[in-house]
Amino acid sequence: QGTRDHPPAQAALRERLLRAVVSCFKRHGAAAIDTPALELRETLMGKYGEDTKLIYELQDQGGELLALRYDLTVPFARYLAMNKVNNMKRYHVAKVYRRDNPATTRGRYREFYQCDFDIAGQFDPMIPDAECLKIVHEILSDLQLGDFVIKVNDRRILNGVFDVCGVPESKFIAACSTVDKLDKVPWEEVRSEMVGEKGLSPEAADRIGEYVQLHGGLDLIEQLLQDPKLSQNKLAKEGLGDMKLLFEYLTLFGITGKISFDLSLARGLDYYTGVIFEAVLLQQENEHVEELVGVGSVAGGGRYDGLVGMFDPKGRKVPCVGVSIGIERIFSILEQRLKASGEKLRTTETQVLVATPQKDLLAARLKLISELWDAGIKAEMLYKKDPKLLKQLQYCEDTGIPLAAIVGEQELADGVVKLRDVSTREEVRM
Amino acid sequence: QGTRDHPPAQAALRERLLRAVVSCFKRHGAAAIDTPALELRETLMGKYGEDTKLIYELQDQGGELLALRYDLTVPFARYLAMNKVNNMKRYHVAKVYRRDNPATTRGRYREFYQCDFDIAGQFDPMIPDAECLKIVHEILSDLQLGDFVIKVNDRRILNGVFDVCGVPESKFIAACSTVDKLDKVPWEEVRSEMVGEKGLSPEAADRIGEYVQLHGGLDLIEQLLQDPKLSQNKLAKEGLGDMKLLFEYLTLFGITGKISFDLSLARGLDYYTGVIFEAVLLQQENEHVEELVGVGSVAGGGRYDGLVGMFDPKGRKVPCVGVSIGIERIFSILEQRLKASGEKLRTTETQVLVATPQKDLLAARLKLISELWDAGIKAEMLYKKDPKLLKQLQYCEDTGIPLAAIVGEQELADGVVKLRDVSTREEVRM
Repeated sequence: QGTRDHPPAQAALRERLLRAVVSCFKRHGAAAIDTPALELRETLMGKYGEDTKLIYELQDQGGELLALRYDLTVPFARYLAMNKVNNMKRYHVAKVYRRDNPATTRGRYREFYQCDFDIAGQFDPMIPDAECLKIVHEILSDLQLGDFVIKVNDRRILNGVFDVCGVPESKFIAACSTVDKLDKVPWEEVRSEMVGEKGLSPEAADRIGEYVQLHGGLDLIEQLLQDPKLSQNKLAKEGLGDMKLLFEYLTLFGITGKISFDLSLARGLDYYTGVIFEAVLLQQENEHVEELVGVGSVAGGGRYDGLVGMFDPKGRKVPCVGVSIGIERIFSILEQRLKASGEKLRTTETQVLVATPQKDLLAARLKLISELWDAGIKAEMLYKKDPKLLKQLQYCEDTGIPLAAIVGEQELADGVVKLRDVSTREEVRM
Repeated sequence: QGTRDHPPAQAALRERLLRAVVSCFKRHGAAAIDTPALELRETLMGKYGEDTKLIYELQDQGGELLALRYDLTVPFARYLAMNKVNNMKRYHVAKVYRRDNPATTRGRYREFYQCDFDIAGQFDPMIPDAECLKIVHEILSDLQLGDFVIKVNDRRILNGVFDVCGVPESKFIAACSTVDKLDKVPWEEVRSEMVGEKGLSPEAADRIGEYVQLHGGLDLIEQLLQDPKLSQNKLAKEGLGDMKLLFEYLTLFGITGKISFDLSLARGLDYYTGVIFEAVLLQQENEHVEELVGVGSVAGGGRYDGLVGMFDPKGRKVPCVGVSIGIERIFSILEQRLKASGEKLRTTETQVLVATPQKDLLAARLKLISELWDAGIKAEMLYKKDPKLLKQLQYCEDTGIPLAAIVGEQELADGVVKLRDVSTREEVRM
């Protein structure tokens, strides 16, 4: 339940998609790493807040207590700490596992791919952070998914807001996870959850409401830097200062048109410490894509400066920032779009079918195909001793093989091969 | 335990290796499929004989009882049955899991990659089987692993041998698994296990010994086809007839020089029903590779005509033949060889580092690198506001970046970039 087989057509589409994402990661100089799908249970515990219950655990069959990885970020932090790595720009494409309620039509599965790019190391502020946003921009543009916006915020700004609105520090995380719902429900509901379930005062909630409904660009950052309360708050000031720097760099990258500084963005995970961001596809006019409303977030990430330290025996910190591309959601979109277009994706790359027009020519086919393989040419033949020529040409049409190399008695006698273009039916002897 | 992280150098080598294997599979017209790493426990039970105990089971957290896949063959058979697929040529590269005693120096892990190529469908005899052997030959030749031999046998011939030697059918599997040890221990030991543990009569064991120590080529096949006892056995006759056909096809492929018809080859798995084969690297003279003795088998496979039927509610059979490339063992060899050669594998593909020779030029770097990325050029820069030029060039040398694109005040004023070849130190303004 919640997993699936990928038949060839899906596997081919997925390969095309992953190739696009990975080529962007490589364009930015990232190296690949690989970590096991199995982690020690203790490595994963206490990293995912409420979602810890979604971790798949292995049965105790003797030996270590194991679990399946929940994401690629925690294994990356564990890797950095274990190997005492201080600097690294890496990507990782692999499956992760979550015992969630599957919503497969919206691309939510229990086993799914993640495509992560992260930059670890002590660097000058916001330069790696800006690169992560540039990567999201490049990938979503390359894939032509339609219009999108990348929402950006900073955990320090959010915490500053909570602070100046009179929320006690012990309730920051609760307030944060409630704010996170603003993209799905109206402010009134969020407010009543804050006051009801989370125990914030109505006044605090109202004050928060004034901030978290704001979104904009450099102008909003400037406005908040002048805000009489926020400008007095150390955390918020730091966050706003860095946000201004980030926008400066994004302006040089020429991508601010798709960036929105959005105070309602909170993101669920506990480990973020600075900039956070999330890319959302905007509703399409197109009728085919209209079904896709609700696909929502297709990439997200942020800065997590404390996570590596949790795995280091001496608590040595390695600041990190990274992005995860929501490949399954993008895959769902591309799949539906392909279906709507009627385009048929080839599942193999075969260039030529080796065919014979008469009986008793299996040996000739085997000899020729062997030469082709040895020359690096992608070639197939039917696994029959005496297939009909029509069947062989039909196979080419069904599977998209563009050429047939035909050897009949005449060709054998003349020492040639007849090469046929399957679609135009043109033939040349060679 | 028994798993490992792949740091960038290993991940890059693995990528190179997998690319070579997959490109061979694609050359033979295979399509990719993907199946979940999780399977229902019941799917895996009863397929691996004694090794069933090595299956990793997931904890019962409610819902289905799951296990991690043990190989890619059983999931493939399950896939064919579930989707009622009668014909398919597919490859699958993925990790599998075994709770085995790890012997990591010999490339034996609890989590490891398998690279499988299989042909499913009802075809004329031995044509797909011959292609599997051709694939093994191509891959081992391409990877330049040194001299190798591909041992070939047929389960029907083995069973015929057991039959004519007076072994009761109920003991065929036991006899088979004992014969399988002949590549590691001398005949005397195998004989005493047959008589002692497996309860075969000494006479039967001696008669088996006369057969299973034979190996050769077409001549041996002819000799056995004339054998007074074997030639009377239906199974053996069928197997020998097909073996002769196989050698005919392999002769047309020009690869019989590396093929040995070897009656001692038995292979452990229960599900084989016809041709079986295993590729072994021959001992090297080379001192560096000498440590690798014991790496042994680097590819194996065979025909399994009954497996799909085990998953089909109506027992519908789909004959299959396939090969699995022992990628981990080959990886160990390539890794040790790389180490011995002193060659340093690049872990990134970055073509150019964007650098500045003076202070306060971060904006110029960000602008230029953004243009390069947008033009599809693999580019990096240091994440510092004012890095020293020497540090930047040092980074190129450390990571193998061939070019530096330098923008200083003069270049900015002139509207040019200075492109420097890192190794020759040649510079051009452009």
